[in-house]
Amino acid sequence: MSVYEERRKKLYDWMALEGIAMVMFEDFEGRRDPAVRWMTGQPSDALLFLGVCGKSLLVPWDANMAAIYAQTEFVIPYSNFDRNSITALWGAAALFKVPLGARVEIPPVTSYTGFLKYIEEAGDYDILCRNNGAHDEAEGLRAVKDETEQEIYRKAAAITNEIIELLEDNITAGKLPTEIDVVFFIEAECRKRGCEGTGFETLAAGAARSFGIHTFPAYTAEPFAEPGLSILDFGCKYRGYTTDVTLTFARSPLSTAQEKMLTLTEKAYAKALSLVKDGVNAREVGMAVDALFGKARKAMPHALGHGIGLEAHESPSLRSRPDNTWQLRPGMLFTLEPGLYDPVHGGCRLENDILLTKSGPEVLTNARIIRF
Amino acid sequence: MSVYEERRKKLYDWMALEGIAMVMFEDFEGRRDPAVRWMTGQPSDALLFLGVCGKSLLVPWDANMAAIYAQTEFVIPYSNFDRNSITALWGAAALFKVPLGARVEIPPVTSYTGFLKYIEEAGDYDILCRNNGAHDEAEGLRAVKDETEQEIYRKAAAITNEIIELLEDNITAGKLPTEIDVVFFIEAECRKRGCEGTGFETLAAGAARSFGIHTFPAYTAEPFAEPGLSILDFGCKYRGYTTDVTLTFARSPLSTAQEKMLTLTEKAYAKALSLVKDGVNAREVGMAVDALFGKARKAMPHALGHGIGLEAHESPSLRSRPDNTWQLRPGMLFTLEPGLYDPVHGGCRLENDILLTKSGPEVLTNARIIRF
Repeated sequence: MSVYEERRKKLYDWMALEGIAMVMFEDFEGRRDPAVRWMTGQPSDALLFLGVCGKSLLVPWDANMAAIYAQTEFVIPYSNFDRNSITALWGAAALFKVPLGARVEIPPVTSYTGFLKYIEEAGDYDILCRNNGAHDEAEGLRAVKDETEQEIYRKAAAITNEIIELLEDNITAGKLPTEIDVVFFIEAECRKRGCEGTGFETLAAGAARSFGIHTFPAYTAEPFAEPGLSILDFGCKYRGYTTDVTLTFARSPLSTAQEKMLTLTEKAYAKALSLVKDGVNAREVGMAVDALFGKARKAMPHALGHGIGLEAHESPSLRSRPDNTWQLRPGMLFTLEPGLYDPVHGGCRLENDILLTKSGPEVLTNARIIRF
Repeated sequence: MSVYEERRKKLYDWMALEGIAMVMFEDFEGRRDPAVRWMTGQPSDALLFLGVCGKSLLVPWDANMAAIYAQTEFVIPYSNFDRNSITALWGAAALFKVPLGARVEIPPVTSYTGFLKYIEEAGDYDILCRNNGAHDEAEGLRAVKDETEQEIYRKAAAITNEIIELLEDNITAGKLPTEIDVVFFIEAECRKRGCEGTGFETLAAGAARSFGIHTFPAYTAEPFAEPGLSILDFGCKYRGYTTDVTLTFARSPLSTAQEKMLTLTEKAYAKALSLVKDGVNAREVGMAVDALFGKARKAMPHALGHGIGLEAHESPSLRSRPDNTWQLRPGMLFTLEPGLYDPVHGGCRLENDILLTKSGPEVLTNARIIRF
């Protein structure tokens, strides 16, 4: 059984238990859902139908790409359905012999106006559009990485770590003087090593701009790693999966306030790492870090971490907000990324990618605060 | 009156006519709506509330960024509303003194499950979630560029044209041998000239990969502009607005089939350009090009063109599908981009940005098929 079949099998089992005849997943511009790639190998732009009969149909926008990547029992180009998702739904239902009146689930992000159309044009089925349904189930399954994914991540992390070493050498030697130099260097080194590219727009904020969580623009022709605190946030995307790390370059002379920010951030990171283990509530780890910063009369304006995978941000969340109910389990892969930002002194963040195993956290990446 | 006030004024007038007390626009990850930037200057991540009283409230995620960019009567950080859009809606309604029972419009992309929450928690207002409402009105207004936007575009096009000249010189001289070299060159030249960056991921497909409409990955370390047909599709983003051009590099020796594809594409482009004028149905231009290709027993697998602006793809559409009801009007800015793709011979596409004026089309960019 291929890894894609194994993943779909988990959904079929869930569908049988829940009495769902068919599920539609949608991965198009404006409504991305990497569950499609996760269950088929198709990189993007397709509908995926799962029938409780245990068969799958991919409806790709680009049939040539599907011929290379997609691994499903059936593939029918979207143009055969006039690029209309409801027409495709009828086609899939016919293929899987779904009886009228059966429960058919569509994505919970379907717009209200779109939902009304499904009811009007496919109301012979019992159309479900809901939270905590098949799509959330798939998201939960994706939060625990299987062996294939863990192998991909070891490779992606190894590439990331090679690049971190090169960055330290080149930046401290003054060979990548501007933000743009640093960003292009990372992009080229990723692709040279077989990556699809970087996993998201690299953020390179020299000391003059590092006070912002989200610097805008993401990088400029201004200096990087001048005296003070510079932040570099990037990921390497390998076979669809991205790493996500942040380095801080702390170049002397530093003020006492800057030194204190760095030490606190390293302490917060160590604290978080000491707390992540099987069965722990993710929220509690976030709260412990908030408390540590609070004691020093500082506050972190973002979440402590997030799952990574086919998306740069996915489940589980490690935020401290009351609505965070994630429990950490072996196979989960997530970032820990404490940071502090000050309009005068600049910002610092330390972010690594953690694989939780039965025996504890394994830190896959080698990001750090680099003092020089 | 600032240009942002002028734009909002058009919406206020429409709201008064339609009896709408308040409209909410939303621009967040997964639900981008550049109408917010268009009416306020805020680059991203905010809610915008317009009251029929003629006042506007921006609710930004990043208050520091709003302090630099946003031009609205009121700004209240999203965190003041617990980052909850319904809480923000209540706050805006209080600020604008919207009476209970009044009509309040939310984005038509709001999910069905999200809509049910609005009804539950803000049902004291008459919540509208519909197509052909305020959001489509804003989209229609954005399709006709005002003078400020036309000025920005002349600058963006001038930068694009400078880069096209440099590309021709460097690529035909063998100085940018791989896809990656070409892509980085464009990105750096854009940013050097004051652009925010490229407007979308540059597509660089050497002759071995140009058969795909969407090459994947977008660029690699493989050769570019080796003998045969190579496609280069990019845009320069200046003050939020992106150009969108495609060059084909046709390097000899070429087969007869390749020569024919090039000539046909140039003919299709000239045909399209001769047809665009005030009052023409956009669909008819698309159909004329489909017919031209059809006569030669070829088919173009994508639309003839699309509007450009704060988004790389916006209104009007120039596709030939029956549901395309756009009529071309002065001030509209769109691409014309005929292309042909063949699994054996590769692909070619020619794409330029056209501003429609009262006296006819003005071709702003200088993209072309470069034979060498």
